[in-house]
Amino acid sequence: MTAMPKFRNRVTEMLGVQLPIVQAPMGWIARAQLASAVSNAGGMGIIETSSGELDAVKEEIRKMRDLTDKPFGVNIAQAFVRDPGIVDFVVEQGVRFVTTSAGSPTKYTAALKSAGLTVFHVVPTLRGAIKAVDAGVDGLIVEGGEGGGFKNPRDVASMVLLPLVRSKVDVPIIAAGGIVDGPTMAAAFALGAEGVQMGTRMVSAAESPVHGNWKQAIIDAAETDTVFLNRKFGPGLRALRTDRSEALEYADHNVMGEFGNAMKLYFGGDMNASLALSGQVAGRIDEIKPVAQILEETASGFFQVIDNLARNHSVS
Amino acid sequence: MTAMPKFRNRVTEMLGVQLPIVQAPMGWIARAQLASAVSNAGGMGIIETSSGELDAVKEEIRKMRDLTDKPFGVNIAQAFVRDPGIVDFVVEQGVRFVTTSAGSPTKYTAALKSAGLTVFHVVPTLRGAIKAVDAGVDGLIVEGGEGGGFKNPRDVASMVLLPLVRSKVDVPIIAAGGIVDGPTMAAAFALGAEGVQMGTRMVSAAESPVHGNWKQAIIDAAETDTVFLNRKFGPGLRALRTDRSEALEYADHNVMGEFGNAMKLYFGGDMNASLALSGQVAGRIDEIKPVAQILEETASGFFQVIDNLARNHSVS
Repeated sequence: MTAMPKFRNRVTEMLGVQLPIVQAPMGWIARAQLASAVSNAGGMGIIETSSGELDAVKEEIRKMRDLTDKPFGVNIAQAFVRDPGIVDFVVEQGVRFVTTSAGSPTKYTAALKSAGLTVFHVVPTLRGAIKAVDAGVDGLIVEGGEGGGFKNPRDVASMVLLPLVRSKVDVPIIAAGGIVDGPTMAAAFALGAEGVQMGTRMVSAAESPVHGNWKQAIIDAAETDTVFLNRKFGPGLRALRTDRSEALEYADHNVMGEFGNAMKLYFGGDMNASLALSGQVAGRIDEIKPVAQILEETASGFFQVIDNLARNHSVS
Repeated sequence: MTAMPKFRNRVTEMLGVQLPIVQAPMGWIARAQLASAVSNAGGMGIIETSSGELDAVKEEIRKMRDLTDKPFGVNIAQAFVRDPGIVDFVVEQGVRFVTTSAGSPTKYTAALKSAGLTVFHVVPTLRGAIKAVDAGVDGLIVEGGEGGGFKNPRDVASMVLLPLVRSKVDVPIIAAGGIVDGPTMAAAFALGAEGVQMGTRMVSAAESPVHGNWKQAIIDAAETDTVFLNRKFGPGLRALRTDRSEALEYADHNVMGEFGNAMKLYFGGDMNASLALSGQVAGRIDEIKPVAQILEETASGFFQVIDNLARNHSVS
């Protein structure tokens, strides 16, 4: 086997990572066990704050220092963390990379940047992207509607959104939504991304702390087995198709009040106790794999796809 | 300028085209004026039958013989053409390439194949793809949910659907949904396609017969300016956001009866007289261009993207 090429672009440079592969900040899931596995495998592990449990988050960040000496980041999910001290909190933890989401990019970008952090903002539309760039972010996480979790009710697929944003802004883009392997990473790069983020793939990883029933449900899911909820009221939500989520699909009220008991699903394995947030890529995941294997296969698959494309489409 | 590389793969071989770019079979729109422009530019022009106007279609096919000596095809939209004589009709016209859609692939594939035609079936899911391959089709048109027109109510984005189908079947794939230029064509090829189909881009083309108001609405649309209708009842429909389509978005009844007067919209320019079927790529189209320019820019952009990817990601 020949040596794998190295990635070297604005994302690897700014984040200080070997692989431009970021783990998504799923609430309660994106904690030290999973994030350290991603960082140790050469990607960017992220600690979540959307659980709102800042004391627990602090402890997870402390654990990260024991579990990895590689870079890791923190996500500030603005809608869920209303404490204005969150910026000081993140800066005090010595974190160098932050993603901000679910809120205005004008709120924290300046403070985070003046503290020397690298800031990427999560955007679901071109309008959001331009607003974030105007607010001075270093880069964007461009999130297609096929991804899981909280979504813009007017969902736009990665195939449309990525090249649109790429054509209108200059900052580096990390693609989220639909990314699960080498071919999807190569497609994202063809559309202008310089990095990718994986959510559902990481929920299903060996090091993910969620109950085995959730991982099995991802493995069992077809590509049509997610539902998009709450489009009429917002925020939208993409979750695995279950009795609970199907019953809410055409609800005539805001379903945010019907999240149920997340802990009972996440860690207790009762798939109808809450909503199992997931992207359409659930239909492409057939196996629980260790994070290191996921990242290695994604990177090698990426280079193989690029190599095949170039071989088949060069001037001869 | 150096010579552009040539495409040579199973789609160009089977279809006998220079460029593996197919024009989608939009009802009333995919007629000789548009289809001949696509064929003459090196792609695959397609004549529609979803209008149900078989006499008019016959006349359009006759016109094609005057307008081009390049290959062209016909789409059999099974849900709209219930006349069982459609196979004989198509065979008698001397057409060599047929796409079938909106119905079971077992219905016409054998008869078309035994008459010597090449048959591609349009599929929106992996299950549909496997069924079509089992029915003996030569290839698939894999249609992501971001595309316009009639859709599977359980829409799946191209970024997820294409590589999923690619991983499970061997026949050549033409990617539809989200395709509008070189980067999206390159992304589709990274995901395993060997050809692409464009719908909305062709509706907006200079040679498209639709009223200028529709073309202008595509140019004015943001990426979030389509709505997905009739998910609860099926078939789903993706159309431009207008007063009429927005009012139907959460309808509690099947909206197929509220199509209105298509002719008044298509050729009269009254954007609320019917539904302006369109994909999310409306948000990426800023200009009315001749078909030849669209195809030339797509092909050259494709090779440029592949070249850049290979340059930036090779063993050095």
